[in-house]
Amino acid sequence: MTKCHFVSDNAAGVHPEVMAMMAKASRGHAIAYGNDPLTQQALQLFKQHFGTQTETFFVLTGTAANVIALQSVMASFEAVICADCAHLHRDECGAPEKFLGAKVLVAKTHQGKLSVETVAPLLRGMDIVHRAQPKVLSITQCTEWGTVYTPEEIQTLADFCHEHGLLLHMDGARLSNAAARLNLSLKEITGDVGVDLLSFGGTKNGLLAAEAIVFFDPKLAKNAPFYRKQGMHLVSKMRFVSAQFLALLADDLWKKNAQHANTMATLLEQRLRDIDQVEIVVPVETNGVFARIPSPWVAHLQQHYAFAVWDPANTVVRWMTSFDTTAEEVRNFERKIQDVSEENPR
Amino acid sequence: MTKCHFVSDNAAGVHPEVMAMMAKASRGHAIAYGNDPLTQQALQLFKQHFGTQTETFFVLTGTAANVIALQSVMASFEAVICADCAHLHRDECGAPEKFLGAKVLVAKTHQGKLSVETVAPLLRGMDIVHRAQPKVLSITQCTEWGTVYTPEEIQTLADFCHEHGLLLHMDGARLSNAAARLNLSLKEITGDVGVDLLSFGGTKNGLLAAEAIVFFDPKLAKNAPFYRKQGMHLVSKMRFVSAQFLALLADDLWKKNAQHANTMATLLEQRLRDIDQVEIVVPVETNGVFARIPSPWVAHLQQHYAFAVWDPANTVVRWMTSFDTTAEEVRNFERKIQDVSEENPR
Amino acid sequence: MTKCHFVSDNAAGVHPEVMAMMAKASRGHAIAYGNDPLTQQALQLFKQHFGTQTETFFVLTGTAANVIALQSVMASFEAVICADCAHLHRDECGAPEKFLGAKVLVAKTHQGKLSVETVAPLLRGMDIVHRAQPKVLSITQCTEWGTVYTPEEIQTLADFCHEHGLLLHMDGARLSNAAARLNLSLKEITGDVGVDLLSFGGTKNGLLAAEAIVFFDPKLAKNAPFYRKQGMHLVSKMRFVSAQFLALLADDLWKKNAQHANTMATLLEQRLRDIDQVEIVVPVETNGVFARIPSPWVAHLQQHYAFAVWDPANTVVRWMTSFDTTAEEVRNFERKIQDVSEENPR
Amino acid sequence: MTKCHFVSDNAAGVHPEVMAMMAKASRGHAIAYGNDPLTQQALQLFKQHFGTQTETFFVLTGTAANVIALQSVMASFEAVICADCAHLHRDECGAPEKFLGAKVLVAKTHQGKLSVETVAPLLRGMDIVHRAQPKVLSITQCTEWGTVYTPEEIQTLADFCHEHGLLLHMDGARLSNAAARLNLSLKEITGDVGVDLLSFGGTKNGLLAAEAIVFFDPKLAKNAPFYRKQGMHLVSKMRFVSAQFLALLADDLWKKNAQHANTMATLLEQRLRDIDQVEIVVPVETNGVFARIPSPWVAHLQQHYAFAVWDPANTVVRWMTSFDTTAEEVRNFERKIQDVSEENPR
Repeated sequence: MTKCHFVSDNAAGVHPEVMAMMAKASRGHAIAYGNDPLTQQALQLFKQHFGTQTETFFVLTGTAANVIALQSVMASFEAVICADCAHLHRDECGAPEKFLGAKVLVAKTHQGKLSVETVAPLLRGMDIVHRAQPKVLSITQCTEWGTVYTPEEIQTLADFCHEHGLLLHMDGARLSNAAARLNLSLKEITGDVGVDLLSFGGTKNGLLAAEAIVFFDPKLAKNAPFYRKQGMHLVSKMRFVSAQFLALLADDLWKKNAQHANTMATLLEQRLRDIDQVEIVVPVETNGVFARIPSPWVAHLQQHYAFAVWDPANTVVRWMTSFDTTAEEVRNFERKIQDVSEENPR
Repeated sequence: MTKCHFVSDNAAGVHPEVMAMMAKASRGHAIAYGNDPLTQQALQLFKQHFGTQTETFFVLTGTAANVIALQSVMASFEAVICADCAHLHRDECGAPEKFLGAKVLVAKTHQGKLSVETVAPLLRGMDIVHRAQPKVLSITQCTEWGTVYTPEEIQTLADFCHEHGLLLHMDGARLSNAAARLNLSLKEITGDVGVDLLSFGGTKNGLLAAEAIVFFDPKLAKNAPFYRKQGMHLVSKMRFVSAQFLALLADDLWKKNAQHANTMATLLEQRLRDIDQVEIVVPVETNGVFARIPSPWVAHLQQHYAFAVWDPANTVVRWMTSFDTTAEEVRNFERKIQDVSEENPR
Repeated sequence: MTKCHFVSDNAAGVHPEVMAMMAKASRGHAIAYGNDPLTQQALQLFKQHFGTQTETFFVLTGTAANVIALQSVMASFEAVICADCAHLHRDECGAPEKFLGAKVLVAKTHQGKLSVETVAPLLRGMDIVHRAQPKVLSITQCTEWGTVYTPEEIQTLADFCHEHGLLLHMDGARLSNAAARLNLSLKEITGDVGVDLLSFGGTKNGLLAAEAIVFFDPKLAKNAPFYRKQGMHLVSKMRFVSAQFLALLADDLWKKNAQHANTMATLLEQRLRDIDQVEIVVPVETNGVFARIPSPWVAHLQQHYAFAVWDPANTVVRWMTSFDTTAEEVRNFERKIQDVSEENPR
Repeated sequence: MTKCHFVSDNAAGVHPEVMAMMAKASRGHAIAYGNDPLTQQALQLFKQHFGTQTETFFVLTGTAANVIALQSVMASFEAVICADCAHLHRDECGAPEKFLGAKVLVAKTHQGKLSVETVAPLLRGMDIVHRAQPKVLSITQCTEWGTVYTPEEIQTLADFCHEHGLLLHMDGARLSNAAARLNLSLKEITGDVGVDLLSFGGTKNGLLAAEAIVFFDPKLAKNAPFYRKQGMHLVSKMRFVSAQFLALLADDLWKKNAQHANTMATLLEQRLRDIDQVEIVVPVETNGVFARIPSPWVAHLQQHYAFAVWDPANTVVRWMTSFDTTAEEVRNFERKIQDVSEENPR
């Protein structure tokens, strides 16, 4: 049977502490839609992590976090700018266009990272009525290529945005992995460096289905309660979403999980270095390994392990680790790649 | 502290068997987005319950089930007809209009139930380009007033729909309660009597957050996979949604839970009968009790128990039971009402 | 051949002075999209008629005027309230829902007119996240039944709106007819009595295709330029739209045309009074006559004259006059009705 | 005063024959919304030009033609592919995203023209539920750079589309200029070479405000009547739109106008050839001249003539001619450029 230890971090299950907290949350009755004590606790935890002035809203999928966050601050004649490899653009089946009725403009990246140089040309046309008006820049931390923006890089982009009347959104589906890599708090790489609104991911880091939209300026959050409901993501038994975040954020499980995943990716990378014809194409900074392999290997390997061909034109594949990846699984995977390498010499 | 045993069935927690199944589902890795064995099992169970030709899609909220179901079969120039008290119209903050870009037309009901007589006038204007074109009739089973359409009533509405080129959608957020009441299978009150597409609710019957869209004609389901994703409800760790349905549908937990809730509502109704000034305004057929009480009682009672004033003009309140309501809770609640009655004589 | 003198005021052609002004506007080149001298003149005329602080935007259809006006002041989670017979609700094929993504709530009317009593119940649910939030009340002047709101009635509705945080929109597709009837200026029945935004119709009063959105508070107009473009109604050769309004508004042609149409409707009504079995069901206040006639007459009359059966359940028909209806045409029509009456005695 | 003879073809007025036909159309009453004899005649003319099986719908702006055409054949989870310089992408303020709720994917061009090589990579992801599904390829004839697709090039793209389940849309805002250049009929460069649906422009070729959507397969047109209405472009006095097309298409005024504009552009190009520092960057095939000029010239020239800087990074400007550009105007313009050249030597 095909193994799926390295296909994606969302192939992992739910962390046992998270599951235990959900089971505990199930006791008794509680008002639905977030007016319950657990949700109040969880929201309080977000204020501890991100700042007392922040406002947070829980949703159930990463696409919803991105789209509802953007909807809260954008009109349909405005536009969001993002990377051409961004989940927002490539992997949400047009959900932003559908819900926002607005344009998604894309810029090329270097290893997944946007810069002022690549974004600036898209601001031409400001105030011209024929053009969609850029309103938000969305960056992904860590990026789709597993790379990490430094706090300085984020601040530079934030300053650029604010000078031009834009807001900075961060798609932090894997924010914890970035924070673990940088050994910084969640706040130090978001609100502290100019991020205006954030999609904070829990699912890829050991939760069941829990994402949060964090507004660093409460004024931006004014319409979010209505858009979350209209966006079909006001869950009735909210306490179970809150319980997940309580488990994740109360004792830094978020960091432990992310660090472990990152470490396993680094381990995988190290073990791959000596395998002939495997080329790591992007520095491994978090929990993804992007490698160019010979094209015929793909089918061989996929008989045993599921994974995505990230860049088909160059046979670059993506291998991901998660909070529960074991060193033994890494070794087994490495051996399988070694086998394929030996069976398919140059 | 305010108790919330009777505020709504979504104030209940998760049934222990459901929680156990979720914990079990967490073992090991599995491909995301539904390509996992548990999801295949759960979808198979739906075929057993609803018919082998049906196609089912899981989502996380009832609003999403309704909206994505409708989007799969409607164009924006078409319209959906529903009851003026329908969740679709009143309680989804315009999600249908937002996502469908289409008109919701409303008809009056008798105790929550639509009839050919009330719906037919809305079909005027068919083929007139100035009018939104009715395409779907949506009925709620059980209704927002807790009443139940008989199979014959559903068949009559279905026949009417099909004669006029409309489809019949059922919002079955509480379908299990209706089926338990009628002592019929889920299929006998849906696909067997002409329902074309169904929102099947799990959350209000003991699940955490799990709803299903069931298409009785697979041709109607063609675009549903894309609309679910674009509708922001393709959850990555799908196996945990599937696990909930496995627990609910494998051994008729759905029926046990629903029957219990219905029984507790009937018990509550019986105990209320002798209380002066409490008038049951709609027959108690499932798990809701709708009662007219003297206006000053509301504040008194709400100091102790949370509940909704369903019809403020007539001080009709809604009291709901759930899968885990106990007879003792019913007795305690009844006593509190009795107290208020005695303290506030006519 | 079927005559269409009484089918609708939009069956009339273009007033000769309007056509002449368009021909004159065609000389030479001019910057497109409204940056031309004629458009500046026309916008200036609107300030003369409606107040210097107003901001006006030209579009090409009445549906566009309504929808783009509303979009400029509404978010998708908000709602517009209108009459159940309003063009906005009945005759725009769901354009408001499509473009706004928002809910249209309807209230019953007395002879086409809304009142605080019928509107107020729709405000329940304000600040409840499950409900679309009423933001605009839209009234039609003159109404779809040809009746006219007095300035006092408008002010009462405006006060009600402003007390509850709503804006008052007026669909003035036939505003000129109402003003002529009341012998008041356009401003006296709009901005002066609390109207916040207006769809001002030209097409039904002798123009080719020209409607205007007038914002009485310039702050409301902030996003209108972008929504007009995104709404597909920023016409390139704008000067020809402006020319139409120049002809209409420079020398009170608007009033002359409207008065004539009104007078012809009154004449028709007078001549119908003595015809047996014709019952005028609504006072004729502007340019429409609504009459109940025996059901078999409809087919007889429609062999000669096109017209709409406005209320099929009661065989109420609508006969309309326009700026160019002649007394002779009225007489001929009356004779035809007389003939049908005599051929179909009681 | 700034002259606007070369700013755009939509700065021209209305051709006198068109204006005369509109004046003529104004006689008498006619049923609104297209049920009038002139509209039937105009639609018949379209069948003569484009084929008897075609179905045509008139709208009032080019943006509406594009968006309503696409909406008639696309679902929101699908995508349209176009050039990065396409009007659809750059100049419609997000109208496609707003109305379609769908993604616009862009490809780079060579001198405005797309090719299979640039489009093919965008088809990756077909049937992957996370990706918007390409459904339409939209090309512009003549292109935004004034270049012309040959019939062979169109057929190649059409074949590619049809092999992959896509439809080919042509934005023919200046189709007449392309046809005149190629000396082919309108049909020979559209339906005959695989175009499935067309936005046919009239406004830029001497009309007031008239565009047509032509479906070459009537099955594709099924929903167009409703989407035109919902798209706010069902004009009531349709006969005046039809009259414009009658003037344009009855006696090949379309070709005469387009040829003249093309000829004037060629004349301008010839006269510019000898001016130092003016570089024509794209072959002049229709009625636009794209020239690189020294950056400081722009302000000098714009004191006298309005025009757009098409590519600010390279100071490429666009100068356009129209049906009524005179040779004298070209000479005067050329002299002004000559003056600026001499005052600003290298």
